[in-house]
Amino acid sequence: MKTEVVVARDGLWNLDRLGILDNVRKESKHLLITDKNIEKLYLRPALESIERSGRLVRTIVVPAEESSKSFEVYTGLVKTALDYGIDKYSVVFSLGGGLVNNLAGFLASTLYRGIGLIHLPTSLLAQVDASIDFKQALNYSHGKNLVGSYYPASKVLVDPVALRTLNLRLIRCGLAEAIKHAFCQDSQFLDFIMAHHNHLSDLDFLTEIVLRTVQLKIETMNPDLHADREETLKQYGHVIGHAVEHLSGGRIYHGEAIAIGMCVSAEVGRILGVTDEETVDAHYRVLGSLGLPTTVPFEFSLGDIWEKVRYDKHFVHNCAYMGLLRTIAVPGSGSEGRCGYWVGQEVLFEAIERNRDRA
Amino acid sequence: MKTEVVVARDGLWNLDRLGILDNVRKESKHLLITDKNIEKLYLRPALESIERSGRLVRTIVVPAEESSKSFEVYTGLVKTALDYGIDKYSVVFSLGGGLVNNLAGFLASTLYRGIGLIHLPTSLLAQVDASIDFKQALNYSHGKNLVGSYYPASKVLVDPVALRTLNLRLIRCGLAEAIKHAFCQDSQFLDFIMAHHNHLSDLDFLTEIVLRTVQLKIETMNPDLHADREETLKQYGHVIGHAVEHLSGGRIYHGEAIAIGMCVSAEVGRILGVTDEETVDAHYRVLGSLGLPTTVPFEFSLGDIWEKVRYDKHFVHNCAYMGLLRTIAVPGSGSEGRCGYWVGQEVLFEAIERNRDRA
Repeated sequence: MKTEVVVARDGLWNLDRLGILDNVRKESKHLLITDKNIEKLYLRPALESIERSGRLVRTIVVPAEESSKSFEVYTGLVKTALDYGIDKYSVVFSLGGGLVNNLAGFLASTLYRGIGLIHLPTSLLAQVDASIDFKQALNYSHGKNLVGSYYPASKVLVDPVALRTLNLRLIRCGLAEAIKHAFCQDSQFLDFIMAHHNHLSDLDFLTEIVLRTVQLKIETMNPDLHADREETLKQYGHVIGHAVEHLSGGRIYHGEAIAIGMCVSAEVGRILGVTDEETVDAHYRVLGSLGLPTTVPFEFSLGDIWEKVRYDKHFVHNCAYMGLLRTIAVPGSGSEGRCGYWVGQEVLFEAIERNRDRA
Repeated sequence: MKTEVVVARDGLWNLDRLGILDNVRKESKHLLITDKNIEKLYLRPALESIERSGRLVRTIVVPAEESSKSFEVYTGLVKTALDYGIDKYSVVFSLGGGLVNNLAGFLASTLYRGIGLIHLPTSLLAQVDASIDFKQALNYSHGKNLVGSYYPASKVLVDPVALRTLNLRLIRCGLAEAIKHAFCQDSQFLDFIMAHHNHLSDLDFLTEIVLRTVQLKIETMNPDLHADREETLKQYGHVIGHAVEHLSGGRIYHGEAIAIGMCVSAEVGRILGVTDEETVDAHYRVLGSLGLPTTVPFEFSLGDIWEKVRYDKHFVHNCAYMGLLRTIAVPGSGSEGRCGYWVGQEVLFEAIERNRDRA
């Protein structure tokens, strides 16, 4: 499982010149999946530069909303793909954010038991996170990403120029994952982000964010998919993050939810005597200064949150499994010989209440 | 990817005593999937011996027909599984033939991106083939196994005693895969099968068949899922086999279709100057003496067969990709540096016509 990542400005206009298409067969038919927003912005350059290379591609546009990452849409894509005449050498291109990456990734992983997959991520979150990861998934009414697979893209082309059209809210969402890696792995990177918190739309800043986060993310991609250390690190802030994101019905975006989740993780860490006070404060300071939310909305009851946490894939023994930090870039040593901590309802509820006291 | 295979007579009555359940968590809820035929025969002993160990299992019974290996049934299973409250440590037991093994395997591979999978195969075909393989799949209107994944079972318990209730037609179907391995890998095993062709229901004979075929099959399970040599060998007879099986709408069983497919492969091999005449004759003699069909039914037009062949996952460049034998246990060296041969429409049609001349 090895994914080749190419970071290139204007890459979407030059897919035929960057080696991205080298193993894409000219004799097969290929699919490009995108959403309605990205269709208007980048479909034409991407498609033209693929077709210039002589490859035949059919485009499928899905609505730009979380509900597209569903069984129903997936089922429709399977039918379209087989009707179109794809074969085992066909490639699925995904042009868009994490939603499109995940949907296309699960599709590619299950057609003919796995065909080619090339991500062309257009959001910061997808560029630094979803497209690099092996995790492909669909949502289900019970929770996010409950159906899915581990399947690496063959190649990923990251074009920072695509971030020019990304609104500030989505830039911040991507930065939340960058900050996650900084919190867990690299304190200097955290300083760099803080030093530029007033230049969030600057292309040089964003290119640096992409390059450094992709590198930190790749370091966490253990070929052993269930490696505890890497998985715990990547999931930092995600237990409460996923619950909040799902309860909000899409109103709170993934990066925002993860920002809130990291703050709750810090509170859990303090309650358990793992995380020092300065590190807890740094969570609120850094995320807040970038304009990300830091507290769990009062509209979600503790009971509702717990119900969602129960469906987290790491939930077991009536406990959530959470990574915690000792201090910046120093993860706690975990419970029972593992890298994460088993956290029961009582501690989690207290952490959420402490978190809400900051609101 | 390592699957532990235990062959044990009366194993289905003693699942709690064979180490099969060692890594199955007592705190999680588990699923057992079976079909209506097997429910009557072996559900009770299997379930009782699992529950005796203190594990909580919910049983789901699907109709005993190929249409159960569909998206619709799969979608229903996902809902049932999540409603029931499975977690990432849950295990899916599959009690039944290849159909149940495949359906349960694809389900297990996609829930929480992959949970535990324990096969309890009850048909000879499943015992020597489907349960050992990593291939999990669903059918689609366009063809068999077009949606699926590669996912190994954690453990497989093969109980030859379950074969006592298997009708002779299904015994023959399993033998077709055993003969495939004998043709491709082991001429002595072929002699053994021929020497016992009048004792197909004898438990000692069947136990020997299971033990030797499982061993030959495991030799073909390369961790590199796309290893050309192993894949070509395992697919011997399957290109035409799958087409015939699908065109018959389930009337011709998998093993029967593979028997026909192997005979057509032999004809292709003779046309291409790969397979010697004695080996071609051996195909008809061995398979025929065991009561397996050897010729493509006249009701299927060449055009219809070609349409199905086109959806085979190995189809490319307007050619089928087929393994061929030089002689027994000696595969041909393939075309263009590969282990299989690219076979166009003309050669394939001629092979089918020669095959039909034997009818």
